Amino acid sequence: MKPIEDCTVGIVGMGVMGGAVAMALGRLAPARLLACDTDGGAVGAALADGVIQEAFADAAAMLGRCDLVYLCVNPSALPGFMEARMRDFKSGALITDVAGVKGGIAKVMENGLRGDLDYIPGHPMAGSEGGGYARARNCDFRGKNYILTPLKRNRPENLAYLKGLIRRMGFGRITVTTPEDHDRKIALSSQLCHVIAASLIDCEADTGIARFGGGSFEDLTRIAMLNAPMWTELFLENREELLARIGRFGESLDALRALIAGKDAAALEARLLAVRERRAAMAEEENRGQQNSCPGILDDALNTLPGSWET
Amino acid sequence: MKPIEDCTVGIVGMGVMGGAVAMALGRLAPARLLACDTDGGAVGAALADGVIQEAFADAAAMLGRCDLVYLCVNPSALPGFMEARMRDFKSGALITDVAGVKGGIAKVMENGLRGDLDYIPGHPMAGSEGGGYARARNCDFRGKNYILTPLKRNRPENLAYLKGLIRRMGFGRITVTTPEDHDRKIALSSQLCHVIAASLIDCEADTGIARFGGGSFEDLTRIAMLNAPMWTELFLENREELLARIGRFGESLDALRALIAGKDAAALEARLLAVRERRAAMAEEENRGQQNSCPGILDDALNTLPGSWET
Repeated sequence: MKPIEDCTVGIVGMGVMGGAVAMALGRLAPARLLACDTDGGAVGAALADGVIQEAFADAAAMLGRCDLVYLCVNPSALPGFMEARMRDFKSGALITDVAGVKGGIAKVMENGLRGDLDYIPGHPMAGSEGGGYARARNCDFRGKNYILTPLKRNRPENLAYLKGLIRRMGFGRITVTTPEDHDRKIALSSQLCHVIAASLIDCEADTGIARFGGGSFEDLTRIAMLNAPMWTELFLENREELLARIGRFGESLDALRALIAGKDAAALEARLLAVRERRAAMAEEENRGQQNSCPGILDDALNTLPGSWET
Repeated sequence: MKPIEDCTVGIVGMGVMGGAVAMALGRLAPARLLACDTDGGAVGAALADGVIQEAFADAAAMLGRCDLVYLCVNPSALPGFMEARMRDFKSGALITDVAGVKGGIAKVMENGLRGDLDYIPGHPMAGSEGGGYARARNCDFRGKNYILTPLKRNRPENLAYLKGLIRRMGFGRITVTTPEDHDRKIALSSQLCHVIAASLIDCEADTGIARFGGGSFEDLTRIAMLNAPMWTELFLENREELLARIGRFGESLDALRALIAGKDAAALEARLLAVRERRAAMAEEENRGQQNSCPGILDDALNTLPGSWET
């Protein structure tokens, strides 16, 4: 791959993530930054904002020029898009995506990709309430986690190149793992959390409850401001893993409920103490990840050290 | 009641809330600020920090001097404390507390209070992860909700006086309601949220899950860093209401699970959309409360308008 300064970059899909990726890549000064979206309003706004240099309604007209392509479409649209547009990509192009479920696309791309292309599936662990291009500026990448689930066929130099870009976009820890491991863990750390937030709102009709909020309720339900079509897709795409997680969460909830119902103060306190200690250990892991994140002055140095923070 | 500048104020219990209340009241320059705690280390630290002017190990020696007393002890300790110390209070003293469950103390104080005292139960909806005096500085009152559950016997002028102080301490919306209404709503907005956070940590043993966090998991589990003895008390004191809330949350969770298991995309999306709309309506209520909060330059004006923001 050429240095990013010499690359024409294409973004497919100008929603909250497409917009945020365009802004972050734009700061790295690629030769040309293009974007396409069937929603002309979104790419039009990005063009007017100076976030991209050319806007397309149709991917076919754009892909042939792009050395690097970021697919920022809903996960269920990915396989169909790749199948329909396979012939349109520029030879040697590096392609990546941002889908929140990784198992499906991995299976399709491992064997179905044109031989002269490279496709590295990824998942930037960032977002913004609501969604849509208008929210892209609220989507902060700095210090955030990024997961890559490479295919067996990926070229090592392309993987190193993409990691360098990701760091320069501001992300913190990059974790390389299998699609299966990603989908199993994300079912807890992201999808189950959204199911819980939605259930917490669903079980209380009185919007005046906000007057009794002390921060907990707000923190637990902020992500209930979700993009309903996209989360419907994510829940259904990762259905088996998510159902298993809901089941295990329900067991933990039942166990706590039983201790409360049984007025078992000693056992309840012991369980809450164990929870506190485990959460503290998780926070340590979080902080360790944050310390790895030094966007800004170290950008160039980081880019020369691919894999150094891989975990 | 005298102006706060002429009052001797006593804080009972120098944990995170006692410490934060002492700091906030201290900024209003009371004539004298005293505190007692059986933990000499906590009051000693507050004394060394200049947060209080006198430290006591025993409440009996302090209470006789105090025009205003803030009881910042664990909820289960309140009735016993009041019974044991009833004779020690200064005649005409105004007493309030910060306990997170209100039903129990209301019953005791409605009939059991010395005739020359006034006791207004309250609940500042603020806190800090962990607890203890060392965390008091992290406990930010600005714009936060405050609930008061007055007794029938409370003198209106004392209620107005306390509201004025609460506003000058930086709190946003003050809601006046019954202990029953408080306990029912707080079971959702606070206690259920803590049960959920604890269950979410309880159901995942791998602390490395932090590498897969994108903010949701962190936001939903931050409050799992709870003070285990205090939350054990709160859960058990408000057991009936909390169990009812856990039950209703479980029903909402089951309903979402069934839609996911049944791959019912249309119904799932509709439910998520309804959730999003309800959460947006709750956020509007939240913001309305925040707009009512103007700590700082308006303090004195606010103090002359008791009840104007009561809802």
